[in-house]
Amino acid sequence: MNECKKRLDQELPSYINHLEMPESLKEAMLYSIHAGGKRIRPILMLATVEAFGESIDQAIPIACAVEMIHTYSLIHDDLPAMDNDDLRRGKPTNHIVFGEAAAILAGDALLTQSFELIADSNLNSEQKVELIKLLSHAAGPSGMVGGQMADLDGEKQALTLEQLEYIHHHKTGKLLMFSIMAGAIIGNATPLQREHLQAFGEHIGLSFQISDDILDVEGDEGKIGKQPGSDENNEKSTYPKLLSLKGAKEKLKHHFDEGLSHLSAANIKENRLRSIAKFIVERDH
Amino acid sequence: MNECKKRLDQELPSYINHLEMPESLKEAMLYSIHAGGKRIRPILMLATVEAFGESIDQAIPIACAVEMIHTYSLIHDDLPAMDNDDLRRGKPTNHIVFGEAAAILAGDALLTQSFELIADSNLNSEQKVELIKLLSHAAGPSGMVGGQMADLDGEKQALTLEQLEYIHHHKTGKLLMFSIMAGAIIGNATPLQREHLQAFGEHIGLSFQISDDILDVEGDEGKIGKQPGSDENNEKSTYPKLLSLKGAKEKLKHHFDEGLSHLSAANIKENRLRSIAKFIVERDH
Repeated sequence: MNECKKRLDQELPSYINHLEMPESLKEAMLYSIHAGGKRIRPILMLATVEAFGESIDQAIPIACAVEMIHTYSLIHDDLPAMDNDDLRRGKPTNHIVFGEAAAILAGDALLTQSFELIADSNLNSEQKVELIKLLSHAAGPSGMVGGQMADLDGEKQALTLEQLEYIHHHKTGKLLMFSIMAGAIIGNATPLQREHLQAFGEHIGLSFQISDDILDVEGDEGKIGKQPGSDENNEKSTYPKLLSLKGAKEKLKHHFDEGLSHLSAANIKENRLRSIAKFIVERDH
Repeated sequence: MNECKKRLDQELPSYINHLEMPESLKEAMLYSIHAGGKRIRPILMLATVEAFGESIDQAIPIACAVEMIHTYSLIHDDLPAMDNDDLRRGKPTNHIVFGEAAAILAGDALLTQSFELIADSNLNSEQKVELIKLLSHAAGPSGMVGGQMADLDGEKQALTLEQLEYIHHHKTGKLLMFSIMAGAIIGNATPLQREHLQAFGEHIGLSFQISDDILDVEGDEGKIGKQPGSDENNEKSTYPKLLSLKGAKEKLKHHFDEGLSHLSAANIKENRLRSIAKFIVERDH
């Protein structure tokens, strides 16, 4: 997993560096691309490709595309008009360093560029079109952007568990699921394998968010990059608040186990995918 | 041209209405889509398709995609952190009605959705991939977004003619050129026809911007939806300022004539394209 992350850290900026654009825009894009993070989405994608015995080389641009979309969403979410965050992963957020206008444009640029990466890749045209269809749906108004809007609409009001799951499923889950489904498409999965991997993705997506909420209650500030308890101070609805900490942990275990049983049923070389799923649930940051 | 605009006005919202998303987001997206405008880009595209004797039906989703990109760019450009405009085409801008967060997200959603429209269209996969490659390039950091960044970087400082042309070529020209090239791709143009249409697009794009600057000096407030002279009050570099009004008019005529000579050389049924080009140069709003 570390080797994979290292390769992504190298490849990602290369898709921006070679482009002709104003230096101020390039700097703002690269700042957030270099800001790191766990690279969970591309790592999940590449592990899925590997599970089908395929080389990851042809999947690298697609993996970088999904990380660009994730990065753009963080830049826009951090804006003063949105979550108004000054820090992200312990570093000043994009608009704090470059100003709001550059941050908005850097986000727009990363989002747009991600589609060029897929269209320019070495896959065949049918695969490219299918990936672009899935990615635009997962990231757009019926996916991630819709989830962020629902999240903003729901702020400062008590949410039901159903509303909370809607938000997470759209805001975080759909892009994680895309990452796994993209790996399945590149790996030429059968329809049945796709079904199981989709279910695996859904459960792992929910596990990811529940573990995030649990970390916010129990985590170590230095590791998670924000103060534990910040969600509580925000009056934000979370799994521990709706289900108690014990209930949230049970729900996490349920989704994790369900996810793994679908992974087994997909009948692929699943070792790395299994350990990434484990990392997602057991991580301390 | 009016019939074409009417059809676009009907089709555009249909690509948003059928989507599942938070109502607040849908409302913000539809507001700017309904805000109208001249629909120059999609009309140019459809006229190019027609010039090759092809039915415009299969081009409608691609025409709507380019208008969504244009609409998103206006929403983001109007934001307080960018041009800080309260009015657009005489109506309150998106963030004035829905707030900044919804406006940012409505823009993100329109941008993302435009790629889904192309991927979901009835064209063949090779055409879709080529269109997505061209559109993402024209709209991204090496195109429209880069142009907007250069525009912001250059504000309140005197620009050279070269810098002004860089900004317009990227901020406005590339998407206009894409619209014509997309029509050529859908119309199965030969390489030579593409070359001439690209040159036609470049000259018409510049004509469009020069005539915009001239309108700002000479236009009627009621028709252009903003006060004439507002660029001057902004200390914004414009063609009339750099070349004098007479020089700007000469430059406009030069690009218009050059554009039309390339259009003739493309050897297609050019009547409608020619009258759209004329409209662009002679419009009063």
